[in-house]
Amino acid sequence: MHPLDPLTAAEITATAKIVQSVNPKGSVHFKNISLLEPAKRELRRYLAAERSNDPVSALTRRASSLYYHRGTTDLFLAVINLTASSVEKIEKLEEGYHGQADMDEVLEVRAKCLSNPKVLERIRQYGLSDELEVVCDTWPYGRDTDDFTRRLAQCYLYAKYKSHPGSNAYDNPLPFSPIIDYVTKELVDIIDLPLGDDHGVTPDVEYTHHEPREWHHDLHSQPKRTDLKPLTVHQPQGASFHVDGHLVTWQKWRFRLGFNWREGMLLHDVTYDGRELFHRLSLSEMFVPYGDPRTPYSRKSVFDVGDIGAGVAANNLALGCDCLGLIKYFSFTISDSNGNPVPKPNAVCMHEIDDGIGWKHTDGASKQVSIVRSRVLALQTIITVGNYEYIFMWHFDQAAALHYRIQATGILSTVPITPGVTVPWGTNVNEGVMAPYHQHVFALRIDPALDGDKNSFVEEDSIPLPFDAYNYAGVGYITKQKVIATSGYSEAQPNRVHKIINPSIINKVSGKPVAYSVHSAQKQMLLAHPQSWHGRRAKYALQPYWVTSYKDGELYAAGDYTYQSLPTDVLHGSSLPKKGDVATWAARNDNVDNEDIVLWHSISLTHNPRPEDYPVMPCETMTVSLKPSGFFEYNPALDVPQSTQRQNQSMLYEEAQNIATKKADACCQSRL
Amino acid sequence: MHPLDPLTAAEITATAKIVQSVNPKGSVHFKNISLLEPAKRELRRYLAAERSNDPVSALTRRASSLYYHRGTTDLFLAVINLTASSVEKIEKLEEGYHGQADMDEVLEVRAKCLSNPKVLERIRQYGLSDELEVVCDTWPYGRDTDDFTRRLAQCYLYAKYKSHPGSNAYDNPLPFSPIIDYVTKELVDIIDLPLGDDHGVTPDVEYTHHEPREWHHDLHSQPKRTDLKPLTVHQPQGASFHVDGHLVTWQKWRFRLGFNWREGMLLHDVTYDGRELFHRLSLSEMFVPYGDPRTPYSRKSVFDVGDIGAGVAANNLALGCDCLGLIKYFSFTISDSNGNPVPKPNAVCMHEIDDGIGWKHTDGASKQVSIVRSRVLALQTIITVGNYEYIFMWHFDQAAALHYRIQATGILSTVPITPGVTVPWGTNVNEGVMAPYHQHVFALRIDPALDGDKNSFVEEDSIPLPFDAYNYAGVGYITKQKVIATSGYSEAQPNRVHKIINPSIINKVSGKPVAYSVHSAQKQMLLAHPQSWHGRRAKYALQPYWVTSYKDGELYAAGDYTYQSLPTDVLHGSSLPKKGDVATWAARNDNVDNEDIVLWHSISLTHNPRPEDYPVMPCETMTVSLKPSGFFEYNPALDVPQSTQRQNQSMLYEEAQNIATKKADACCQSRL
Repeated sequence: MHPLDPLTAAEITATAKIVQSVNPKGSVHFKNISLLEPAKRELRRYLAAERSNDPVSALTRRASSLYYHRGTTDLFLAVINLTASSVEKIEKLEEGYHGQADMDEVLEVRAKCLSNPKVLERIRQYGLSDELEVVCDTWPYGRDTDDFTRRLAQCYLYAKYKSHPGSNAYDNPLPFSPIIDYVTKELVDIIDLPLGDDHGVTPDVEYTHHEPREWHHDLHSQPKRTDLKPLTVHQPQGASFHVDGHLVTWQKWRFRLGFNWREGMLLHDVTYDGRELFHRLSLSEMFVPYGDPRTPYSRKSVFDVGDIGAGVAANNLALGCDCLGLIKYFSFTISDSNGNPVPKPNAVCMHEIDDGIGWKHTDGASKQVSIVRSRVLALQTIITVGNYEYIFMWHFDQAAALHYRIQATGILSTVPITPGVTVPWGTNVNEGVMAPYHQHVFALRIDPALDGDKNSFVEEDSIPLPFDAYNYAGVGYITKQKVIATSGYSEAQPNRVHKIINPSIINKVSGKPVAYSVHSAQKQMLLAHPQSWHGRRAKYALQPYWVTSYKDGELYAAGDYTYQSLPTDVLHGSSLPKKGDVATWAARNDNVDNEDIVLWHSISLTHNPRPEDYPVMPCETMTVSLKPSGFFEYNPALDVPQSTQRQNQSMLYEEAQNIATKKADACCQSRL
Repeated sequence: MHPLDPLTAAEITATAKIVQSVNPKGSVHFKNISLLEPAKRELRRYLAAERSNDPVSALTRRASSLYYHRGTTDLFLAVINLTASSVEKIEKLEEGYHGQADMDEVLEVRAKCLSNPKVLERIRQYGLSDELEVVCDTWPYGRDTDDFTRRLAQCYLYAKYKSHPGSNAYDNPLPFSPIIDYVTKELVDIIDLPLGDDHGVTPDVEYTHHEPREWHHDLHSQPKRTDLKPLTVHQPQGASFHVDGHLVTWQKWRFRLGFNWREGMLLHDVTYDGRELFHRLSLSEMFVPYGDPRTPYSRKSVFDVGDIGAGVAANNLALGCDCLGLIKYFSFTISDSNGNPVPKPNAVCMHEIDDGIGWKHTDGASKQVSIVRSRVLALQTIITVGNYEYIFMWHFDQAAALHYRIQATGILSTVPITPGVTVPWGTNVNEGVMAPYHQHVFALRIDPALDGDKNSFVEEDSIPLPFDAYNYAGVGYITKQKVIATSGYSEAQPNRVHKIINPSIINKVSGKPVAYSVHSAQKQMLLAHPQSWHGRRAKYALQPYWVTSYKDGELYAAGDYTYQSLPTDVLHGSSLPKKGDVATWAARNDNVDNEDIVLWHSISLTHNPRPEDYPVMPCETMTVSLKPSGFFEYNPALDVPQSTQRQNQSMLYEEAQNIATKKADACCQSRL
């Protein structure tokens, strides 16, 4: 077994049994069971030997498990040695830390909410029509005081048509919201939601009907388009990639696929043409704060990675729907609250894509042409987090660039509004239905290893020369680099390129250190005030780039325990690094020049909804590219073979028009 | 014939004959012959009637032609009425205006340069090895004084291996540069190029050999990759689009394709689901200024659209190479310097692309899923401008968004440098070969017609509310719109969305005017000083957005006559609007609120070359998206049919692995 292979079902069961064996029978409520990756020092030794085909000795497999004792608030973190079948450590976490909301617990709280007599009475008073039933979305409570509060669920209720299981669960938001205690399952309160354009509430409002707006394909009010002809992608000689367990090789790339409940899909030990590029690439966090200033929306926010888990929420991807062409699926296993394995089948798909032209030139005089198409290897995972869907992709290209693509789709989080009212912090999307402005701030964790693990992070600006005697025409400009020598953050500027460099390895052609640049559009960062709870709990979202010195266990930009988290400055007594966040680690003032560094890139999507985003949102796409920038001595895609019609088997429109009118099997003959 | 159909070969011949008939025999040196589109007022009447299937009466076909009398500097603009076979107007342009460098003339100047005895003597002195021959690139001279100077070519010379016609023409830049008069074909001067890191020149430098770096697929020093398996795209039932002449319909979109020598591919009368969106969309200009402050690079710059022509430079696209799948090609005709038609076969290709997932949602409780794939209609043209290639694409999607994609590829413009020297304004890409920093600033001209031609342009900012008693949690933010009421420019901000709106049409769902937003990453604009010749000649490049009131004939952001152009402030005597530029038109202080407006978007690519961009550059991609933003009442892609494996015919990797090892025809059977 490879040290980075995700936990197997057997390992999850073994971990659970060991944890249960040292705890009172039946008392353990598992929050999660994770692979505890080996310490980087020993892992890198192992990986280097493996890449060199040197003998390697197996590393100890370890799992961590976070758990409660059922019905209590004591939270424990156990480290289990799977190789030795033993407990290495059990730590009781300080008060104030909470585990994430696991799926079993969420379902239980939803059921409790919807069977609570007070809630039922409020629903009855609201007077829904008989065609509707009420469903419950449990949101993290968020935070509005610095109390070490109870762990709570803010329940948003919606009425949904019973007639079809796929009817829109967000089209009839109810005007009140119960709060449930996750431990006791008690109803703490029922809050009236503001329905006007200010803080006021109208508790006695009654249900009024509006025309539903349905997303499910069975339920659309309009006819389907009938003029879309099939488009199919084939690889008659098979895929160009090779898979060996979780090790993937393709077009000079080599990497190891990882997966866990929290980060979902991740990449380890990414190399190109035998040269190390990235030790580990992962979605570290995603924060979704809402911009509606009113109670309870003023605390409405979720850390989708830490509070829920990208692995937990991963979809079972379907051939020909989520993925088109020749598809390799990867399946994984996570755990439930009883420590039982839960399969996550087809949680990641991998396939090749034609991405247009790779490079082309025509010699002006001789009219000689070389052209290659750009083939991309795409790894994709899709997660459903309540109303929203996120599609995360890694695109590897043949010119040694790696692209992280995020797509947001699914349904807007909706709230009730009095028909006819508009608010400046949201968009009306149906009668009585408002979608508040919000942001999605993703944290991409980049652990670089450009030709080794001693790297630096630099800001490179394009700066006009002074308009003077030397630059007499006023056209000259140069680039200036500033190394971020001490851990901290770096701002985005329209003129700025951020680069990871290895200062010890000089590119022979350019005469400068080898580098990869990070290409990401400059975006507005967190709009909540830095001193708001949002700002203090998600400090990473205040800046687009952070650089820290590498320390084992520092994986999550907003800290290990995000559910209803307290800001690190409230928890000043703690000395445990895992209880910090990226701002804490950056504040160590560590040397990060020519060191083992970690780069954290906050990718911000300010989503002020459009009516067009409802009832289901066309994908909104953002891409971050990691591109060689003086890492190679020339175009790394120069050796891609010329594109030819013989290989690519394209067809003229006019020819196809003829064929389409003939008998069906003609298509196959023309293709071959 | 449709009023917007590009000129036919017969029309070009007819135009030339009419122009020749009123000029001394044999004297006419045609610079260009263009369709003169009808005045907008009558054109819009025609288009509206046509869309309503009302009877239309043919509009007068007109062509414009710019020409010299051979061997003189007098420049004339003729307007020819093709319907009446008559001259409508001939205007002699003022001194200071130049026609573009046409291809015949360029070839003649190159030949003159390379046969000039003084140039040949310098080449001999340089002492090239016998394997090499010299080729000449003619660059626009640019401008470094306000004289109404002669029309000149700055000739950059390169030595190229004779052994193969596709050998790299830019790998051996010669250290001197002849200047030739375009009219007299005289050698004006031979300039020594700076070779160090300052202004100094070393005229007596001799050729030294370095290892060539070749782009052509026959010449690579490394072996080709052998592990890339074919990937083919099929549409067994034919294409989903319909073509009727230059009218294209696809998935509720309807538009008319245009083409001319200057703008190349353009779009007219773009509608979605019967609603008007854009009257005309075109590449208005592209400026490429270099950042090397030294003579002659201090004037090195080119307006690739105005000085050369995107239509002139358009490639003949090849099936299976430039375009993959089921391809419709469009061919056009331009003219040569004698007024003869020049075919531009396959200058535009059109095909459908699978662009991943369109939208998806899974209902949390019922696990019901709807998913559609995103099909895109792509129109593509590729131009070769000397060393560089540009790929321009329009991508129409099913959610009513339109994306303009620009890709830069080809070869860097190289200059000689003393081996071992580095400069802060360029990157060394081979021994003795330096690629200076430069920018590409594209001007996308958007003539909007959202539900009619009275539109406005607005800046929409996301602004945090004050952290006060009302916004007690500090999380609230709102959007504020500012209408650009008077013609001018608008800056980009990370928090800013630019929108085109129709203030008279209110979206019933959102309660706000219908709108399309312009999504484009904020970029550094022109780095040359605003008071430099670059800054004054390409004022459009100083700001990302300009809005002007519509006037017939105002099509080109840097003016009609860009070759060696004088800034508009030098030509203050002129009252002809065609002699203005976008800054001139914006300075009219016209009302542009709820008016017939034109939006000009400057898209800036600051290209500080990487060694990886040499000897041929992997595509660098930029995308501008025009997306509905409250134009529709709900997701316009809601009616796209569900994705199914039955239609999409994907295949599992494991299945393909089995098949690939079996006999070849098995692949076809499994597909059907």
